[in-house]
Amino acid sequence: MNIHTKKKIGVLVSGGGTNLQALLDAEKRGDLKSGTISVVISSKPDVFALERAKKAGVEGICVDRKSFKTKENFEEALHHTLTERNVDVLVLAGFMLVLSDNFIKQYPDRIINVHPALIPSFCGDGFYGLKVHERALEYGVKVTGATVHFVNEVTDGGAIILQRAVDIPEGISPQGLQQLVMEKAEHILLPQATELLCADRLQRDGRRVIIQ
Amino acid sequence: MNIHTKKKIGVLVSGGGTNLQALLDAEKRGDLKSGTISVVISSKPDVFALERAKKAGVEGICVDRKSFKTKENFEEALHHTLTERNVDVLVLAGFMLVLSDNFIKQYPDRIINVHPALIPSFCGDGFYGLKVHERALEYGVKVTGATVHFVNEVTDGGAIILQRAVDIPEGISPQGLQQLVMEKAEHILLPQATELLCADRLQRDGRRVIIQ
Repeated sequence: MNIHTKKKIGVLVSGGGTNLQALLDAEKRGDLKSGTISVVISSKPDVFALERAKKAGVEGICVDRKSFKTKENFEEALHHTLTERNVDVLVLAGFMLVLSDNFIKQYPDRIINVHPALIPSFCGDGFYGLKVHERALEYGVKVTGATVHFVNEVTDGGAIILQRAVDIPEGISPQGLQQLVMEKAEHILLPQATELLCADRLQRDGRRVIIQ
Repeated sequence: MNIHTKKKIGVLVSGGGTNLQALLDAEKRGDLKSGTISVVISSKPDVFALERAKKAGVEGICVDRKSFKTKENFEEALHHTLTERNVDVLVLAGFMLVLSDNFIKQYPDRIINVHPALIPSFCGDGFYGLKVHERALEYGVKVTGATVHFVNEVTDGGAIILQRAVDIPEGISPQGLQQLVMEKAEHILLPQATELLCADRLQRDGRRVIIQ
């Protein structure tokens, strides 16, 4: 692949797509120089993320998990869809399914995910969406944040690319904190990490990611 | 106790005492209004922390752990020394011993500790001193920080009072990170938390600490 060609980015979503919007906005303002969002794929029908894609003039497709008997069949269809469009890198932006090892191996160090906490805090199985923020508030932490990491076979266990801290205001609700972490951390980190990945600026050494 | 009386603070140390120095400096510049550092107690002889106390005109005492056969006997002597001086609150500033439940119960919500990480990351048994930073760098986190928390029967497990994040510079050593976290977080948080405690501004609700 020519080094001067923009990487083709596939964004996987399952819902409202606010992180997708952050990526679309970043590309529009020129902060995503080394890649272009080629396709948005949703695992659920009728999600607002597909509307966002359409509005931005990006192809949006539903590969409905429920229409496949097995995860294997679903992932086969997903892979087929991505391969047809020559997608280079995958960004999970609020994608609510856990991908299998076999699927992940087809995109070595080319799948990234955003998690709404400072990994290794409040991550792993059972920590998704609003629950992450509920647990953080129950635990009584005063600082949280977001993490963009490579996706490997362990949930939220891949090497960390970027993290950003967010101070927790006194008395905030889980919903309020979810919103704050999105605005102050996720929406900033995800486009940055995507650009670094597309620009081949991420060098992984075991668990450590060196930014070049 | 009269609400207008300054709380008497006992600081427990085991080494160089840079966090003690941060407390002494805070009192000197008037940032510790509701308390006064009355005594510094070291669990080891000939530590530099005792020099710092002396220089600041604060009584420094060594209650040498090694001169007692059992932890119980050591803690009895420690408690006696503190009681004699009417100490109200205890600040652990690089104190390298784990206090027993029985000792801790004598100072309910009146002992605080500083830990050089964002709890619940990189804390608990085995995570102390330089090791905390070595583990954080091995794990590949991009953000770390410090936590001041109440001391309870679980190592680093008490309710969190204050936290402050520190971005990890690319390629920093564990020693460099230790220094950075001290300067950018521990030395700021510990005097702040001590003042809040002495001013009776900390209200604990289970694991959550509300600052009033």
